[in-house]
Amino acid sequence: MEGKKIGSNNNFVDVPIRVRYADTDRMGIVYYGTYPIYFEVGRSEYMRNKGFTYREFEEMGYNLVVVELSIRYHNSALYDDLLMVRTSITDLKSRGLTFNYRIFRDETLIVEGKTKHICVNRDKKPSLIPSGLLQVLVNGE
Amino acid sequence: MEGKKIGSNNNFVDVPIRVRYADTDRMGIVYYGTYPIYFEVGRSEYMRNKGFTYREFEEMGYNLVVVELSIRYHNSALYDDLLMVRTSITDLKSRGLTFNYRIFRDETLIVEGKTKHICVNRDKKPSLIPSGLLQVLVNGE
Amino acid sequence: MEGKKIGSNNNFVDVPIRVRYADTDRMGIVYYGTYPIYFEVGRSEYMRNKGFTYREFEEMGYNLVVVELSIRYHNSALYDDLLMVRTSITDLKSRGLTFNYRIFRDETLIVEGKTKHICVNRDKKPSLIPSGLLQVLVNGE
Amino acid sequence: MEGKKIGSNNNFVDVPIRVRYADTDRMGIVYYGTYPIYFEVGRSEYMRNKGFTYREFEEMGYNLVVVELSIRYHNSALYDDLLMVRTSITDLKSRGLTFNYRIFRDETLIVEGKTKHICVNRDKKPSLIPSGLLQVLVNGE
Repeated sequence: MEGKKIGSNNNFVDVPIRVRYADTDRMGIVYYGTYPIYFEVGRSEYMRNKGFTYREFEEMGYNLVVVELSIRYHNSALYDDLLMVRTSITDLKSRGLTFNYRIFRDETLIVEGKTKHICVNRDKKPSLIPSGLLQVLVNGE
Repeated sequence: MEGKKIGSNNNFVDVPIRVRYADTDRMGIVYYGTYPIYFEVGRSEYMRNKGFTYREFEEMGYNLVVVELSIRYHNSALYDDLLMVRTSITDLKSRGLTFNYRIFRDETLIVEGKTKHICVNRDKKPSLIPSGLLQVLVNGE
Repeated sequence: MEGKKIGSNNNFVDVPIRVRYADTDRMGIVYYGTYPIYFEVGRSEYMRNKGFTYREFEEMGYNLVVVELSIRYHNSALYDDLLMVRTSITDLKSRGLTFNYRIFRDETLIVEGKTKHICVNRDKKPSLIPSGLLQVLVNGE
Repeated sequence: MEGKKIGSNNNFVDVPIRVRYADTDRMGIVYYGTYPIYFEVGRSEYMRNKGFTYREFEEMGYNLVVVELSIRYHNSALYDDLLMVRTSITDLKSRGLTFNYRIFRDETLIVEGKTKHICVNRDKKPSLIPSGLLQVLVNGE
């Protein structure tokens, strides 16, 4: 948003997210089920940063279906906090991959988690990740 | 859920909704943007009660696209409240209709609102509502 | 909703959830981040079934803060599906517990997961779960 | 996010929003109930742009409670679209105000709407908007 920009190095991509009122619950903090949405923003911007978008990927006929999700909650985030989602890839294989996420408010770790995905084609069958894309995912264009 | 059942007469259909923690915000009440979702549940159960489901309607190649929404907020609803969504139809026309909603907690009116819809076909073009369905919407089967 | 009721035995509580349009995404299936909300409904109804509500628990000054979440996705759920959330407790300890969830559409397992919680008091400090409540959680009243 | 920045003039504030996967539904477009959340982002950034945040406003003991919402839907928005929310204030009074919103994708108007708010104090009673804040809302600091 204002001031903080999307950053990256070879290993990770950082994207800022401003906590919305809708994201909070009556405990006054970000609802535990909001973080999977922040993760989705993280991996979406990861791919954009590497040179193609997840939307383009889908338009080619593929999906990265989520098969596992895990989150560890360390600290609470509050309305209007400016969080940073740091996304990286581990376990990149021919048919799937795992995204790792760490969400910070300044130096404070809020949550960390990962999502494991498999690649499926138009027929919803497991598929090889197109090889050109594999390279981009790791190295960028 | 427990105890309260879906009721109806010729004019309206009542459906209970239990407020989820996810529906609340840090003010401790149901987030203002949650009510359109409750409305969707109301009109979905209205159609089921009249004898066909909105899912079947979509499978026939139609959508009831929302073109207008309005809500007036009268009172707050809280986590775990058992609300009643009362849905009726007004302004049923050949190419569209308006759903009306009133949401209560016991005798207390929480919100009231309406959604105006037009019928579109597979090509996303405005379409006549299939005549058989028109009858069902008003009278039930 | 209609027909299916909340069931339970000593070990688990079943609660039906109708998939809302809002719960789906453009893949045409339930969004992966919707399931933590279904889990919340599951544990909320588990507690109600055992004889006190999570709302009462909070009104006594306690929260069951989520510290870990994990989900394995087996099959897709669709709009208007009537799902069954089966919730049980494992690892009940003096200061926390784990809820387990399995979500079915008829005999088909859609997802399974768990949430690990610790009990905190009004000062947001880790706290013993009140002993009376501990008993209820396991045995019901 | 990348490239487009928050802009403003005396009359309105523009804020970009990237459509998330979570925001879409099985029709493949942004769910109709997502727009109230985008409106919330719009008015939140409007206030930040004028020199104080809604979070600070709440910390002073006030809330701008929503009493009315209306939306007209003109065109669909899609996953990954970069939308622009243009927010302005009309009908600023001593005890309340109305925010107006127009959401665009490039030159295409997606939706327009408004939310009417009243100011309440810590006791949830209607209250005068603090006079300093009134000025800021209109003119900026």
